[in-house]
Amino acid sequence: MLTAKGAATRRRIIEGAAAEIREMGVAATTLDGILGRTATSKSQVFHYFPGGKEELLLAVAAREADRVLEDQEPHLGDLGTWQTWDAWRDAVVERYRRQGVNCPLGLLVTELGRTTPAAQQLTAQLVDRWQAALRAGIERMQVAGAIDAAVDAGRTAAAIVAAIQGGVVILMSTGRIIHLEAALDTMMAFLRSAAPTDVPGHDEE
Amino acid sequence: MLTAKGAATRRRIIEGAAAEIREMGVAATTLDGILGRTATSKSQVFHYFPGGKEELLLAVAAREADRVLEDQEPHLGDLGTWQTWDAWRDAVVERYRRQGVNCPLGLLVTELGRTTPAAQQLTAQLVDRWQAALRAGIERMQVAGAIDAAVDAGRTAAAIVAAIQGGVVILMSTGRIIHLEAALDTMMAFLRSAAPTDVPGHDEE
Repeated sequence: MLTAKGAATRRRIIEGAAAEIREMGVAATTLDGILGRTATSKSQVFHYFPGGKEELLLAVAAREADRVLEDQEPHLGDLGTWQTWDAWRDAVVERYRRQGVNCPLGLLVTELGRTTPAAQQLTAQLVDRWQAALRAGIERMQVAGAIDAAVDAGRTAAAIVAAIQGGVVILMSTGRIIHLEAALDTMMAFLRSAAPTDVPGHDEE
Repeated sequence: MLTAKGAATRRRIIEGAAAEIREMGVAATTLDGILGRTATSKSQVFHYFPGGKEELLLAVAAREADRVLEDQEPHLGDLGTWQTWDAWRDAVVERYRRQGVNCPLGLLVTELGRTTPAAQQLTAQLVDRWQAALRAGIERMQVAGAIDAAVDAGRTAAAIVAAIQGGVVILMSTGRIIHLEAALDTMMAFLRSAAPTDVPGHDEE
């Protein structure tokens, strides 16, 4: 177990490496660049990351995955009204508009090897956490009577994560953000259409 | 302009290279492997692809992009009833279930460099064609009175393409197909919820 000081140093190396990679790209990032930026020595880096480059890249990827969720706060953790859902939608679009065609996490996962167990686990965990937060939000809206209880909250949350992911991939591949916006808006329209009060004369089938 | 025989030879080289890449992966594919499989000579390959490896890979990527759409036929071109929409949905899921974690087009685009103009143009064209076909299907349903005329067909088509893309990326990254299914099903539920006959008592806002 790391001491508080050790944990802080490890954290500083990860943050510095993440910043270096965001600025230079994965390919152009060197150990020297990271050492210079973090004011650490090579032996410190290998002390905290005995697995070397791959272990450090994996830690940076985990940090970037955390950031994907952090950048959606405080909205993602507070999806209890349509107002917060709308604010969350705007925050997601803004985050990816700022980020543009270069997704640090996507590049790191590609570098680590998309199909390696470590990269798969990292991606799966991010998807799971993202989905759980959205599911909790849908369930809150169901408890509040704003979304029909018959909607499968978990499956709909999975669909929303997929829709965002697809919008981001198309943004990264074409430079266009319209797909991300359309995907989010259509998912929101689906949730709103599932509001019991919206369909007063709806026949139960 | 190529003669008929020349076009056939060019086509044979592309198909052979595509098959070789599907079997071996991009990295392990060699010119000799392609020559052996297509019964062509090195000088023939450079005659039809003077730009060499990159030009050939781009032609193979274009072929794989065509195949993405072909594999959705005859359903994608015939989205005039809920029955054909359901058949299309199942065909998409089956295609990607068979394909699993390795997407030949995705790997080729990564190899060509996702952000190169040629790769971006290829991806954008595929997205546009896919979206146009879905838009035509939504518009047919609107003309038939099965989907509310107020639904933005183009934007919804863009959302569906994004949702599929995201489901496929999560499948490639985690091995799970549930996101693709959930994304498609939620989009279909949205379209069905926009059927005018489904909400006889719906208040116009």
